[in-house]
Amino acid sequence: MAVEGNILAKIRPSADEERHLSEVVRELKERVTTVLKEKGWEAKPILVGSVAKGTHLTGTEVDLFVAFPPDLPREDLELRGLALGELLERRARMYAEHPYTRGWYRGTEVEIVPCYRVQDATQRMSAVDRTPLHADYVLGRLAEDQADEVRLLKAWTQGVGVYGAEAKVRGFSGYLCELLVLRYGRFRAVLEASLGWSRGQKIELDRAATKEFTEALVVVDPIDGGRNVASAVSLDQLATFVHAAREYLRGPSERFFFPRPLKSLSVAQLRALAKRRGTGLIAVAIRAPAVTEDVLYPQLRKAHGALEDLLVREGFAVHDARFDVADEEALFLFELIVPALPRVIRHEGPPIWVRNAKEFVEKWTDDRRTLSGPFITGDRWSVDLVRDATTAEDLLRASAKGLSLGKDLEKSARRSLKVYEGTPALKAPYAPAWTRLLDKRFPWER
Amino acid sequence: MAVEGNILAKIRPSADEERHLSEVVRELKERVTTVLKEKGWEAKPILVGSVAKGTHLTGTEVDLFVAFPPDLPREDLELRGLALGELLERRARMYAEHPYTRGWYRGTEVEIVPCYRVQDATQRMSAVDRTPLHADYVLGRLAEDQADEVRLLKAWTQGVGVYGAEAKVRGFSGYLCELLVLRYGRFRAVLEASLGWSRGQKIELDRAATKEFTEALVVVDPIDGGRNVASAVSLDQLATFVHAAREYLRGPSERFFFPRPLKSLSVAQLRALAKRRGTGLIAVAIRAPAVTEDVLYPQLRKAHGALEDLLVREGFAVHDARFDVADEEALFLFELIVPALPRVIRHEGPPIWVRNAKEFVEKWTDDRRTLSGPFITGDRWSVDLVRDATTAEDLLRASAKGLSLGKDLEKSARRSLKVYEGTPALKAPYAPAWTRLLDKRFPWER
Repeated sequence: MAVEGNILAKIRPSADEERHLSEVVRELKERVTTVLKEKGWEAKPILVGSVAKGTHLTGTEVDLFVAFPPDLPREDLELRGLALGELLERRARMYAEHPYTRGWYRGTEVEIVPCYRVQDATQRMSAVDRTPLHADYVLGRLAEDQADEVRLLKAWTQGVGVYGAEAKVRGFSGYLCELLVLRYGRFRAVLEASLGWSRGQKIELDRAATKEFTEALVVVDPIDGGRNVASAVSLDQLATFVHAAREYLRGPSERFFFPRPLKSLSVAQLRALAKRRGTGLIAVAIRAPAVTEDVLYPQLRKAHGALEDLLVREGFAVHDARFDVADEEALFLFELIVPALPRVIRHEGPPIWVRNAKEFVEKWTDDRRTLSGPFITGDRWSVDLVRDATTAEDLLRASAKGLSLGKDLEKSARRSLKVYEGTPALKAPYAPAWTRLLDKRFPWER
Repeated sequence: MAVEGNILAKIRPSADEERHLSEVVRELKERVTTVLKEKGWEAKPILVGSVAKGTHLTGTEVDLFVAFPPDLPREDLELRGLALGELLERRARMYAEHPYTRGWYRGTEVEIVPCYRVQDATQRMSAVDRTPLHADYVLGRLAEDQADEVRLLKAWTQGVGVYGAEAKVRGFSGYLCELLVLRYGRFRAVLEASLGWSRGQKIELDRAATKEFTEALVVVDPIDGGRNVASAVSLDQLATFVHAAREYLRGPSERFFFPRPLKSLSVAQLRALAKRRGTGLIAVAIRAPAVTEDVLYPQLRKAHGALEDLLVREGFAVHDARFDVADEEALFLFELIVPALPRVIRHEGPPIWVRNAKEFVEKWTDDRRTLSGPFITGDRWSVDLVRDATTAEDLLRASAKGLSLGKDLEKSARRSLKVYEGTPALKAPYAPAWTRLLDKRFPWER
């Protein structure tokens, strides 16, 4: 456990930091209460998140919720929440289900979020109303010496690359880490338990599921049987967690908590690697729209799928691919098995016995695009046509803009979509993204 | 019907030919009977085939069966049959289920085949014992004016390229043509009826099927409900028949009966065509083993499938292919979408949760062939390896001989298999075979 002792010394807030956090929280609650009184608003500030539960890492942010009565119209809730947010400096308005404020108070990052006061999760009126209940649940059950176990699990998942439920990561949230420690007792016990998990693994604490979940990992929310706390966890990330756990237990090392940063390959190295692999490299770049990561990433994922489907559908087999953001561009990188195809493409028609077979034959006989046929293969009509685009590059240039790429990305694509193939695709600003695609080592192996 | 009148004038034997045929048959029967008497063998010569039924085309052969009693040992049946075959000139010993003799008698081609005398098909002891019953069935039912209808159907299927049940053609036998005319009355009525056929079409005459048939076309043998007279007809050939029927009925022409011979493209034309199509052309050549076509063609079909499977399995997508025989070589021609592939190939392993996942990871970590990985894709292990052969040519050179190619072909392949790619594949002796692959026109369209 020497490794974990060393890690805790690095991730646990110092006594000074704790003192400062306490002051920040106390002062903010006072100032919120003062504003509420001045305005005559009935509401109560509630500390939530990891600071409330004492499971925070050093450098944490403070999450301050303000609970309003359930009969307050939503519009007023939002306006009042934003008004309270003005207590913060360098603030930005954020959007989830409703707007809230993120900013700074005496050097500490703070979120001030309005919510409705509810007694249990079934009464909730907005997506964040459960959060104070989560804080209560954990705080009431976590033994004093388990806080450090949660800290270890959070830091470890972060190092392994699977921390955070946000769209960019699709991994393990802080609350999920807390529940896993509650369920299994200790950091190492969570890792050990995970060796027995598989796709669709279901974990329940005090409350049974009230519905069927289909996600890769299911951890039923103990304050709401209809919610999967692990719903964000993708299959890849779950598999990475389990593999990392096996490796860590076999040889614990600080590397898992603090991996070396990925060193980008140079353009020259990338070119040599591309030559060695023999594949075709293509980059599609779209100016990134000015939206938050949680709005952007689902669109990146959708666009990436649409581009890959287009390539595969037209015969350009994809060996590997990823999306990324670099230099204010959304990047879609494809490593193609076949970047160019013959001019001829076979188009299969209906069986010769069906009624509309005649239409197929009439359509393609002497058509401008027909190279040969229609002819019979098996019991179907087929025809050899001239392929529209014989390179993946041409195909993407001609058709990528017409795909469903997500609202903001689609708008941006119409004006800014660029396709690069071969050496131009390997330009310096894209080198880190290509490195992330081609360097398959796990973070702790770097 | 002017077309069909003209055709009949060409395909119906002349009065002189008929007179000659009658003499050949009468003399042969007499000479067989004389030999049988001399040897003291109990048996009876029976004329079968199209001459017996009066449905023969000009230039036909004569099929003379000799029916022995069922208690004769098979060995004696074979020896006696071959002894009778010595009545023929320029004779050759043929092999089906048992040996028989093919040769010439007074300028007419003749087969002398021994069989067992049976009353109905259920008693049959060898594959040919049904044949005299077929002759009886047709002769007893075919109206005088229907013989010409059979002649038209035979000549038409021949012209269209679907005549003959042999392995090379997989089409319509003479007996099948006769049954179709019996069923539908006239040549044109058969064609009209075929417009309503589809895959698995089942036709019964006087006898219902006594089992389930799975072939493309099912015509239940009226003298044996357990036999499909159309069992040889492939799906392609059935579809071609139906399409040709539709075209013929729309515009009857002698072209269907007597198509122009396919004119081979020159090597220069083939090269230009290959360039225009952009595909990769590969020819695999094996010295043809000295066996009959009915032995060779099933092996060609098997070998062709094995070669194509190998290519596809290793990622070399096949656009089109055919097998052929040219200049005493068995030829396997492939038009490839992708004749060359990158050096890297992804090899997918087990899900990370299964017991043998560890073995996969251990096997490929630091293996000589590993380019990167093992890494996780979805919930599976994967690894990028160096591909064994990056061209279809190299793959075939390395692996084709190890495939299951059919007994005789396999033996020949071990010593004589050659692989040609690109220009060398388009050499002059192979030009007709390449033309048959690339010129997709139907015979009547030439």
